Amino acid sequence: MKRLNWGMIGGGKGAFIGGAHRIAAKISNKYEFVGGVFDLDYDRSKEFAVEEDLDLNRVYPNIYTFIEGELGMPEGERIQVVSIVTPNYLHFEHARKLLLNGFHVICEKPVTITSAEAIELQEIVLEKGLVFALTHTYTGYPMVREMKRRIEAGEIGDIQRVEAKYLQGWINPIIHGGEGKLATWRLNPKVSGISSCLGDIGVHAFNMVEYATGLEATAVLSVLNNLKDSNPLDLDGNVLLQFKENLTGVILVSQIATGEENNIQISVYGSKGGFHWKQENPNELKMLHENAPYEIIKPGYGFLTDFAQESHVLPPGHPEGIYEAFGNLYKGAAKAINNETTVPGQFPGIEEGVRGMRFIESAVQSNKDGNIWIAL
Amino acid sequence: MKRLNWGMIGGGKGAFIGGAHRIAAKISNKYEFVGGVFDLDYDRSKEFAVEEDLDLNRVYPNIYTFIEGELGMPEGERIQVVSIVTPNYLHFEHARKLLLNGFHVICEKPVTITSAEAIELQEIVLEKGLVFALTHTYTGYPMVREMKRRIEAGEIGDIQRVEAKYLQGWINPIIHGGEGKLATWRLNPKVSGISSCLGDIGVHAFNMVEYATGLEATAVLSVLNNLKDSNPLDLDGNVLLQFKENLTGVILVSQIATGEENNIQISVYGSKGGFHWKQENPNELKMLHENAPYEIIKPGYGFLTDFAQESHVLPPGHPEGIYEAFGNLYKGAAKAINNETTVPGQFPGIEEGVRGMRFIESAVQSNKDGNIWIAL
Amino acid sequence: MKRLNWGMIGGGKGAFIGGAHRIAAKISNKYEFVGGVFDLDYDRSKEFAVEEDLDLNRVYPNIYTFIEGELGMPEGERIQVVSIVTPNYLHFEHARKLLLNGFHVICEKPVTITSAEAIELQEIVLEKGLVFALTHTYTGYPMVREMKRRIEAGEIGDIQRVEAKYLQGWINPIIHGGEGKLATWRLNPKVSGISSCLGDIGVHAFNMVEYATGLEATAVLSVLNNLKDSNPLDLDGNVLLQFKENLTGVILVSQIATGEENNIQISVYGSKGGFHWKQENPNELKMLHENAPYEIIKPGYGFLTDFAQESHVLPPGHPEGIYEAFGNLYKGAAKAINNETTVPGQFPGIEEGVRGMRFIESAVQSNKDGNIWIAL
Amino acid sequence: MKRLNWGMIGGGKGAFIGGAHRIAAKISNKYEFVGGVFDLDYDRSKEFAVEEDLDLNRVYPNIYTFIEGELGMPEGERIQVVSIVTPNYLHFEHARKLLLNGFHVICEKPVTITSAEAIELQEIVLEKGLVFALTHTYTGYPMVREMKRRIEAGEIGDIQRVEAKYLQGWINPIIHGGEGKLATWRLNPKVSGISSCLGDIGVHAFNMVEYATGLEATAVLSVLNNLKDSNPLDLDGNVLLQFKENLTGVILVSQIATGEENNIQISVYGSKGGFHWKQENPNELKMLHENAPYEIIKPGYGFLTDFAQESHVLPPGHPEGIYEAFGNLYKGAAKAINNETTVPGQFPGIEEGVRGMRFIESAVQSNKDGNIWIAL
Repeated sequence: MKRLNWGMIGGGKGAFIGGAHRIAAKISNKYEFVGGVFDLDYDRSKEFAVEEDLDLNRVYPNIYTFIEGELGMPEGERIQVVSIVTPNYLHFEHARKLLLNGFHVICEKPVTITSAEAIELQEIVLEKGLVFALTHTYTGYPMVREMKRRIEAGEIGDIQRVEAKYLQGWINPIIHGGEGKLATWRLNPKVSGISSCLGDIGVHAFNMVEYATGLEATAVLSVLNNLKDSNPLDLDGNVLLQFKENLTGVILVSQIATGEENNIQISVYGSKGGFHWKQENPNELKMLHENAPYEIIKPGYGFLTDFAQESHVLPPGHPEGIYEAFGNLYKGAAKAINNETTVPGQFPGIEEGVRGMRFIESAVQSNKDGNIWIAL
Repeated sequence: MKRLNWGMIGGGKGAFIGGAHRIAAKISNKYEFVGGVFDLDYDRSKEFAVEEDLDLNRVYPNIYTFIEGELGMPEGERIQVVSIVTPNYLHFEHARKLLLNGFHVICEKPVTITSAEAIELQEIVLEKGLVFALTHTYTGYPMVREMKRRIEAGEIGDIQRVEAKYLQGWINPIIHGGEGKLATWRLNPKVSGISSCLGDIGVHAFNMVEYATGLEATAVLSVLNNLKDSNPLDLDGNVLLQFKENLTGVILVSQIATGEENNIQISVYGSKGGFHWKQENPNELKMLHENAPYEIIKPGYGFLTDFAQESHVLPPGHPEGIYEAFGNLYKGAAKAINNETTVPGQFPGIEEGVRGMRFIESAVQSNKDGNIWIAL
Repeated sequence: MKRLNWGMIGGGKGAFIGGAHRIAAKISNKYEFVGGVFDLDYDRSKEFAVEEDLDLNRVYPNIYTFIEGELGMPEGERIQVVSIVTPNYLHFEHARKLLLNGFHVICEKPVTITSAEAIELQEIVLEKGLVFALTHTYTGYPMVREMKRRIEAGEIGDIQRVEAKYLQGWINPIIHGGEGKLATWRLNPKVSGISSCLGDIGVHAFNMVEYATGLEATAVLSVLNNLKDSNPLDLDGNVLLQFKENLTGVILVSQIATGEENNIQISVYGSKGGFHWKQENPNELKMLHENAPYEIIKPGYGFLTDFAQESHVLPPGHPEGIYEAFGNLYKGAAKAINNETTVPGQFPGIEEGVRGMRFIESAVQSNKDGNIWIAL
Repeated sequence: MKRLNWGMIGGGKGAFIGGAHRIAAKISNKYEFVGGVFDLDYDRSKEFAVEEDLDLNRVYPNIYTFIEGELGMPEGERIQVVSIVTPNYLHFEHARKLLLNGFHVICEKPVTITSAEAIELQEIVLEKGLVFALTHTYTGYPMVREMKRRIEAGEIGDIQRVEAKYLQGWINPIIHGGEGKLATWRLNPKVSGISSCLGDIGVHAFNMVEYATGLEATAVLSVLNNLKDSNPLDLDGNVLLQFKENLTGVILVSQIATGEENNIQISVYGSKGGFHWKQENPNELKMLHENAPYEIIKPGYGFLTDFAQESHVLPPGHPEGIYEAFGNLYKGAAKAINNETTVPGQFPGIEEGVRGMRFIESAVQSNKDGNIWIAL
């Protein structure tokens, strides 16, 4: 397959989430990074493009020149799909313009600031027949997909109970940091919209519930907590869900669950069994049975559904974090090659290679000689 | 920093480990993939280069033409560092040629087939002043590096006990698969060298022990097990280690620990406390204390050592597997854009965006209206 | 301390919960089992008393004769405290009679069938100045008590969020077992009262929340689920709690969470840190901190609060289950002594003793002789 | 079944292990505590007997009078079985005398100080046809017994690898506490015999290996570590085991694994699957499979082997620690009844009963009224 010509709006120098999108695109091996608008400051945008070794003709000062420039390219060279990683309140306008001009869009969440904006985008997507992807990242985990497929296949029977939670603690030092901190943009409704906790993380849990179960919630009842009267936005809450008759659910969310990191998890129980999955240990899917030991399902096996298999390329027992571990060795070697000041232990070298070979040879010798000590 | 010009020997089409090296290089953001010798078959090598969008002039039929071609390039354009991901028995010859011609080398493990070869490479590396990196990947994990630094800083006092294990089960179906299977290359000493289990995984555990503790083992005593008399290579064993006086250690290894995936772990105990780390849950470092609750140290925090901090770019609670989850969404979107036949659920779209916004708005409304049900 | 003279109403032959009360009383070492009314059938009651080696004069046909008989005894011999382990709907009447006649009472939960009955008992208890203990067993765990004391001491600051859950799956095969099963007493409101799930387990979770946090809930909002229209009682639900301003909580409960066993757990988050405890692993109390690794607190240490220390008599690392393991060896030995038909492996014997001594001697010898093999 | 008349040698006032034996005997419900020799000091022995409400005629000053006195009793009243919980070096003499006089014996480990003594006991046991039980407690856990039976039944095929470990850290503060501490009896070979670490805990691991696998080790090779030259006994070591051809094993032991509590665990791998069990979480038996998710087997289910079922009386999800939690409530109530000074929270009382009933009623009401807040 030829890679897709791919651009970005936002995500330049120092943008964490932009870097994550680029690594994700690289891992998928289906995108060729071509150009975009990376920064409000055109000079910084070009500096970033140089670092990324991009053609500077494909770096644009703004969304208008981007669209004009790309539409002026021959069709085979033109950017086909654009990732939007700008601040939330800009998503709508950027997505709208790109879709109306025929570009496929990959958009960071939240999709927009209001549902009215989201519905408008939906209408354009339908009319234009374009792809619009929203990066609810957690649905990309192989074991979430295994759970989804097994629920579809009826492996736990009819669903009887659904729970999800998403707990973080990172707002805690902000909310307790004095009134000055309360004025930061995170707790400013003009920038963040009508909700902090639901908008930032509750919506992920909600998406996970509907994704994994295949159910559609029909109504919600919530209790939200701003913690301080001087704070205009929710930081914590519990949301009850209605599905069909005789089935309800619940979502627990908090940004002030002190000490919690990124604890999103889901439990689904049916008439025959249940599933439990949590993001902080994403390679383990717990499957509960009525009258048999529970199982821990892990990625990389031939007995998994096709969907889980195609979503995981590593052999069993290799957490995907191994890519980053691997990357750290590459980074260490690059520092050494560039003669940057470096501390030892950044990467194994030939000394470790020699010691390893001696270890193997000596251990084989010890066994051969009747289990005696052999000097290394 | 300008990226390093980087090439590969091996690792072409369908090579799992080659792909892992490329993702690692991308994550480190310090390498520009330029060219190499990707396959014994030059045509396949070129096909691969087209897929990777490389300049075909930098794709060579073999190591000789590679060296000749690159040395003929102006210095700023020349490949500076080469990753070797060829079959094990070729590592030595490829590394030797590259080093003698001034290329830095990143080499898959095992470094060579014998320690004599490894020592020869070591002499060349020292003489030439080049970088030689060996991809003992597990030493790249942030929490392994945290452990190393804390041990160096004396946080657990003098080391009193060292244990490591590396258990896998994947040889089990081969060894029990009949004499035909025993003839496979994996159990053929001509290809695999003098050891299967020690050479493939024991050496990783040994490297981990010396890396994490900073100790050097002085002698080994081993018991190895081939399981069947007709099998010439070890599949399982236990290796005792001597360090300095009053300190010994042990490494447990197996490729026939049925059901085990990639279970490498290490425990180090000192006069003040201890550490335990296991690769299958790499983001949790257990720190034991003499008379206090044990702690679980996780990446992403400012209180960690610099080494761990620079080895992990994600916020707390995000396992690095999130990159792959993210990549799966990108892959799904690419399939849709290319109109490939696809099943639903590969990526969230605008419908999920609309539902998410409605969820947020309805839940905020429910809370505002006194905790009543609001239809979605 | 002299042991208390102790009696039971209910809990005779084959009653699981009665046996648990007797073991608990024995472990506390503060009760002398003297007599009671163990069964509706007086003959069965006496048979049970013989087994327990009780004085048959202290076994009574009913609560009336019990009270009369005991009040007729000299004060030092009289039963002082009575455990009630009769069916739920009888708790009220039995407790009332005993309290009015001056007996201390230990009562199985639920205390009564209605809050009106409970309030009546409360008035009698206050008036009489007697002890009334309700066996919400989970509050007896050492690590629950440690959590309670640390929260009281302000170790996690002001409480911001409270979650509890209690999930079981045992009703699942009953509810799906056909209309016949729905008619069983468990789902019969005349016997079970107005609630199945809340009454049986929700109340435990509620008690745990108030016990651990020291907070009093002021209002509840609930959604309950009977699963089938033909079933008159709740089997599942989510209950929102109000505490003081800016603090809410939630309790999740289910008896149809298929595959769950007895999953009661609680999380409490404050302005400085948080706690998480779950009954299925009761010896581990997780303590979360704002900017430090989380800790796992375990029983048996001198650094614990006095309350946790006095609630756990075993050294660190010995789960209390060890008592039952120990009891199994005693049971096995008794079977052998009684020449009952038995399978091997019920208890270690002298052969195991001999082998153990040989193991120690041989291993010491091997080390002394330079790490050589010594035959066992 | 009539209970066995049971006595103890040792285990009086303040003896932790004696108390554990008594609770175990009570839990098994098969022993009637009748008398014994509880202390070297006869007065203290009698004081203890009063506390236990024993007949003082059955309390003896020493083993000679015990044997004489009991043999003088009519057969139905005579003590039939005696538990020995004296210091280790006395086990042999006490066991020998009791066995020669026809008493069954339950003996704390280690059985004796030398294998010669153990063999002598073995001969007497065989000759006399008596029961001799050695309290290797860990073999009494239900999930250890499940593992044993499943291995016997061939569920993991032929055994290929055996690992056990037993790590503790409690000697660490002693060994580092100065020469004075080194002189304590624990490190005195005259009292402790030829080994500290192997004798105290290694032998448990060895027993576990042979018990669970059904295999007999034929030879050992060990490396032991005394840590300090001034310390005459081993504190740490690794022991290699030989079984039949093509099968070896390993036992790791330490008393200076700082921060470890009572970490005994075992792994057994066969040609079809494997098992892993650890004492600190004794209710979870991990079963590994060649090509299927691993399972966690827990006690209390009808699908378990008979042996595991008869070894566990509680329903699923109730760790046996619940007995102690229960006992704590009983203890708290006894304190209140005795008007001892007490802090609140020792046991739930009628107030908690009232609140619980209100909780149930209010939550049912909220649901009935359409999910509105109901005051508590």
